[in-house]
This record gives sequence, structure tokens and C-alpha cells, in this order.
Amino acid sequence: MRDVAIIGAGMTRFAKHIDRSMKDLAREAVDGALSSAGVEKTALEAVAVGNAMAGLITGQECIRGQVVLRDMGIGGIPVINTENACASAATAFHLAWLYIASGMYDVVMAVGMEKLFHEDKQRSFDALGSAIDVELMQQTLASMDEAVGNDGAGAGKSRSLFMDFYAGLARDHMHKYGTTKEHFAKVAAKNHTHGSLNPHAQFQTPRTFQEVLASPMIADPLTRMMCSPIGDGAAAVILTSSDFAKRFTNKPVYVRASVLGSGKDLVPNAPGITERVGHKAYEMAGIGPEDVQVAEVHDASAPAELIICEELGFCQPGESGKLMDDGVTALGGRLPVNPSGGLLAKGHPVGATGVAQIAEIFWQLRGEAGKRQVAGAKVGLTENGGGMLGGEAAATAVHILTV
Amino acid sequence: MRDVAIIGAGMTRFAKHIDRSMKDLAREAVDGALSSAGVEKTALEAVAVGNAMAGLITGQECIRGQVVLRDMGIGGIPVINTENACASAATAFHLAWLYIASGMYDVVMAVGMEKLFHEDKQRSFDALGSAIDVELMQQTLASMDEAVGNDGAGAGKSRSLFMDFYAGLARDHMHKYGTTKEHFAKVAAKNHTHGSLNPHAQFQTPRTFQEVLASPMIADPLTRMMCSPIGDGAAAVILTSSDFAKRFTNKPVYVRASVLGSGKDLVPNAPGITERVGHKAYEMAGIGPEDVQVAEVHDASAPAELIICEELGFCQPGESGKLMDDGVTALGGRLPVNPSGGLLAKGHPVGATGVAQIAEIFWQLRGEAGKRQVAGAKVGLTENGGGMLGGEAAATAVHILTV
Repeated sequence: MRDVAIIGAGMTRFAKHIDRSMKDLAREAVDGALSSAGVEKTALEAVAVGNAMAGLITGQECIRGQVVLRDMGIGGIPVINTENACASAATAFHLAWLYIASGMYDVVMAVGMEKLFHEDKQRSFDALGSAIDVELMQQTLASMDEAVGNDGAGAGKSRSLFMDFYAGLARDHMHKYGTTKEHFAKVAAKNHTHGSLNPHAQFQTPRTFQEVLASPMIADPLTRMMCSPIGDGAAAVILTSSDFAKRFTNKPVYVRASVLGSGKDLVPNAPGITERVGHKAYEMAGIGPEDVQVAEVHDASAPAELIICEELGFCQPGESGKLMDDGVTALGGRLPVNPSGGLLAKGHPVGATGVAQIAEIFWQLRGEAGKRQVAGAKVGLTENGGGMLGGEAAATAVHILTV
Repeated sequence: MRDVAIIGAGMTRFAKHIDRSMKDLAREAVDGALSSAGVEKTALEAVAVGNAMAGLITGQECIRGQVVLRDMGIGGIPVINTENACASAATAFHLAWLYIASGMYDVVMAVGMEKLFHEDKQRSFDALGSAIDVELMQQTLASMDEAVGNDGAGAGKSRSLFMDFYAGLARDHMHKYGTTKEHFAKVAAKNHTHGSLNPHAQFQTPRTFQEVLASPMIADPLTRMMCSPIGDGAAAVILTSSDFAKRFTNKPVYVRASVLGSGKDLVPNAPGITERVGHKAYEMAGIGPEDVQVAEVHDASAPAELIICEELGFCQPGESGKLMDDGVTALGGRLPVNPSGGLLAKGHPVGATGVAQIAEIFWQLRGEAGKRQVAGAKVGLTENGGGMLGGEAAATAVHILTV
């Protein structure tokens, strides 16, 4: 397979863009990616588009990519629409990478986009709730309703399902390893403080761990600031073959590994999905976790970041609380994690997140990350997870990038 | 890029499967594909899943593939969910092909599936109506309603949009080339008669062109039998590298070309999408239209088949009516088109169609197509189109297969 490089990136600020359409958000991200790459839109040979929920939010169930791309004058080329819940955009990036790695095309764009806010808030929650087995959930809720004689009360229960799940993981970790609420609060405080340095972040106010602990309780031990918010946004990157990249830039960022996986629960005694996919990515890149200098990981909740750090080998199992106590993953530490603010502070427009993570590492490795720059970073990693089946993510993608 | 082979195929009958879930339909197709290939499900390294409308029909907006695959005990591997309206399944096949052609994986499955029937018929129509620019359509309908002072009357108008479009194409062709209603009726009669020989077909009653003309008018000149029906179903195929295929079968079918494209309207003076994509596919395969011995094409309406035959070079522009008069594209003719019955008679569960077309050509080239076998066919082609933007398909994929 051929070596692949990233030569440009763009994104909107993640925010409650109530008056902007998905076309408008995508255009800003694509314009940014093309202009930073110095590539004309007519040079694109294919586009892979990640989006998770437009069908339920806007009714645009089909040809989501073509609709936004045509609006900005891009057409006539292959457009792949892909979805993997919260990992939709990393999946799109993976496919764009595959097109180039295979030798089929030389210049391909990956776009992630999501318009999640809706004036009817329940519609946003229902869309998020579709990232599980909907049929199974309806059967479960129906039998719960039947048990309590409460016809129809199941509606909307999916809204807190993910955070209930993360709260359970958090309590298990506390029980097993002595991790504390303060550790989780420190993750959120770190990421909010990182977000305050990022003009693309939805939340740009630095927070202390005391403030995080004092925010409203969502699902014990998770307070609101430990949970990623609902948001809108888009991100785009331009990929080329390594040889082709040299025509456009003397600062390409290389994709050393691109690995996608799904839940492990059907594989007896297998490690968790993040560990498995991460291991394959390290193998593909020929490096280990000790070589990673900056990472963007899927902190949909604060405890998730800690568990992912362990699964990716940034520390031993159970020792992620110590990472926080020692400031290892904060800007200025040995291995800054989520310098962008992560999902907790940069925000989480579901189908945009994976490409936004790639964009952040692209900027970090090129030394273009402004106030949140990780000094001298040469090796970066992204981890993007999505959906839930059988007690773990239904999809996870890990990418390793280097200069 | 590596050579890729298909080694197994399976599908459900396309029909109104009102009491069967998408999981159930997909399982039948996957079981058939795996057992015909002689491959255990644990040997699969990745799966690409095409589905267009589950979000709007069943609420399963996200991780559609993982949900059905987990139900049949397949997990732990990369799952790509992809959508391209009526071309969703061919897009999934294209991605499965790309995984193997790139060298990344050796055994990959492509699945197409759709559950389109819903007890609320309007829901099915609304889902079909989402294969255009929904925002633009809403604006158009709103301004139409305003013009006639008829608030809200726009709802549901999308139901006939595609057939109105095809009716316009048909009238243009009649005007320009002297094609007649009888020619369109002959297409439908041919495909219904082919369908009568196919146990997988939704409609298995042979029809005469007089019967087709006598069926209810949908949009002049299209009668009901000239329009593809709503249906449910699933199809699956197993792909491997050519080298790997030999371990499993002495009858592999090779994928000589896999090309995806989108609408041409932004490319000045470009030929139509089908012509462009077809041309690239012939180039990739190193053959021409004169070499094709059997084809499955996207006859969402009867005139569409004629126009596609011209665009793919099976005859000169304007001469497709003559193809019908001479029986060229009927079973027994020089180049049978849609021996399966096509979308008109086999049926069109949107996100399943593209893989079902591939399955049909797989069986034809292996001599396993039963009563509808095209004698001695060695070279086959599939064409699957989806969505509509700027007056033509938003996505089209052409595949060329040989033994």
C-alpha cells in the first residue's frame, strides 16, 4: 500500500449553530481545508463524507455528502457517504486514506459534519439514542413499561443511556483501582482549560476541578462538565499520496496507521476494542505508545479519557488517575491528551469529531496549533469511538500521524 | 492494485416481507453467501454494509451494519456503513473491493439490505423522497404552496417525484428519437417475463406488453408495470483476493472494474454520469461494450433501461427502441439485460439492489442461474444508480465481472 499524507485541514468552530445549515458549516470547513492545502476543488478526485444523524435531524436521509458538496460547486466525482455513529468521521477519513493507499486516486478529501441541535430537543436526544440496537432497546423499554404498568413512559429514556453507561464504567474504575471523582474532575478541568486556548472550541472558559465537581449531577459520579455537550460543526482534511504531497507543501503530515474495528464481545477472551484497534495501529505504524507525543481521544465523558489512556498503553491499567495527579496529559506534560479541549470542551458534533481530531493533530505536528501548541511534537495519535453494542463501542478507529 | 474475486453470493427473495425484520433478511442473505463460498463467518476480516433508509423507516439511524451482523454472531472486525440512495449496495461492494484491491484484507463481505415497507405507507414514500436535496425541495414546495395559498399541501409530493422525472425522460426520448410507449412496455414485459424465471423475484408472473400498457397510469407515459415496486430484501457476496479465491473454489468470478461517480452537472459539457462511469469501467477492465454478454442495469423505470443501454454503449444513442424490437436484450438475444427481472420485476429494496445485481451476474457467469441462465456468458456488467441532484443520478456505480 502507498504512503499517504495530509496536506490541508479546516474546521468550523464547534458550537450551537442554530441559524447555520449543514451546507453552510461544511462549506466553511472545506474552504479552509482546500485553501490551507493550496488545492483547487477541481483537483479533488473523490470525497468521503461522515455524518451520523442528518436523517433524523433534518430529514436528509440519503446522499448527504452530494447535497452539501454540490452546494459548494463540487460534483462529478465519487462521493462515499459513511456512518459509524460517533466514529463516522474517522471512518470517512479511513476510506479516503484507503482510496489513496490503494493507488486508485491521488487527491481525496475527507469531511465530517453534523447538525445536531434542533429546536425540538427531544429530536436530538432520539437521534443520539439511535446509536444502539434500536429494536432491542424498544423491546427492553416495552417490557419495562409493561412491568410497571406505565404505557409509553419508555420514550426518551435513551437520552441518558450513554452517560449511564459511562457512569457505570467510572464506578467500576473507582472500585477496582481507587480512582476518585476528583480524578474525573481533573480530566474535565484540563480539557476545558485546553479548550480556552482553542478558537474552534464550543467552551472556551478555563475551569478548575472544583468547578467541575460543583456542576449539576448527570449520573453519579458524572457532573455536567464531565459530559460532552451537544453541538454543530464540520471539519475537512485533504489527503494525497506522499509523492503527490510534495507538489503542494514542504510540511506534509504522514498517515502511518489507519485502523477501524468493531466491538469484541463475540470474540472469546479478546481485549477491549480500543486496545485491539490501538495494538493493530501501533503494529502498522511500527511504533509504540511510548513514542506518542500528542493525542486526541474520544472523551465523550471524563472517565472515558482515563480508560482510553490505559487501553492505548499511555499508562498501565488502573494508573490513569496518577496521569492526572502528575499532570502528564496536560499541556506542558510529557504526553498532552486532547490539547484541543477534546469532546468535553471543543465539543462533539457527532459526525464531525473524527476528522476534527485529525485536523488538530495535523496542526500540532506542523507547529500551527497556536496557544495550545505541544512543543516539538512529531508523533500524534487519534482515537474515535462510536455507538454501543454488547457493552462497548460498536466502532473505533485509531490513526497515527507523523511528520 | 490486486485482482479481486467473488467466491459466494446469497440473497432473500425480494418481496413485501411485512413480518420479517432487517436482521432476519440480512441473516438469510449472509448465510447463503457464506455457505456458497464455503467460508466460515470467523474468516471474514471486514464487512461493508449498504442501506439507504433504515433511519427513517425503523429509527435505526446509526451502526446499521453492526446491529444486524452482531445478531448473527459476526463482530470484532471493521464494519463500514455506507449509503448512496438506490446505489448504496454497489457503493458497499465498491468499498469491499477496495479493501481487498488495496492489499489491506483478504476476505471481505459486502451486504446490501433494505426494509422499505412500513404499515404507514407515507413513511416509505417520505424515505424515498429523501434521495434528493431535502432542504431545496422543502423551499420549492413551500413557495409552491404560497403561490396557490395552500398551506402544507406540499407534504407527500415527493412520492411521485422520481416517476415524474422518469416520465419526462421518456417523453424527451419519444420526441427526439421516435421511441414509443410500446417500446417502454416491451422493456417491462421482458423483465416481468425474466422475473417469472427467478425464484428471488418479487413479481413472478410473465406479462405481455399489452398487459403492461393496460396497467394503471402513474405518470404519462409510465404505467404501473413500467415502474419498480417498493420491496424488502437483502443480498450478500464474499470477496477475496484472486490468489486467496483458489483455496475456496475453482469457479471464482473476477472483478475487472469497480467505478463510482456522482452527477456531472457541475462539469461543463461532460457526458452524463452513466456514460462517464461506464467509460471509466471499460477502460479499467480493458474491454468495450461489445464484449459484454449479460448485464443488470438500474431499470427503476422502463425507459431508464433503454437510456442506460445507450449510455453504456450497448447501442447507438436513440437506437434502444430497436434493441427491443429485435429482442437483443431478452433472454435468448445477443445481450440479455436484466435476466433477473431487474428492478421492475425482481424488485427494488433500495439499499439491497446493487449487491443483488452483482449476485445475479455471479450466478450467470458460473452457469448457476437456473431457468434464466444466459448460455455461455463469460463477461457481465452491473450498473446501479442512486439519488437525484441537478437533473441526474447523484451516484452511479458500474462493475464489470468475468470468469
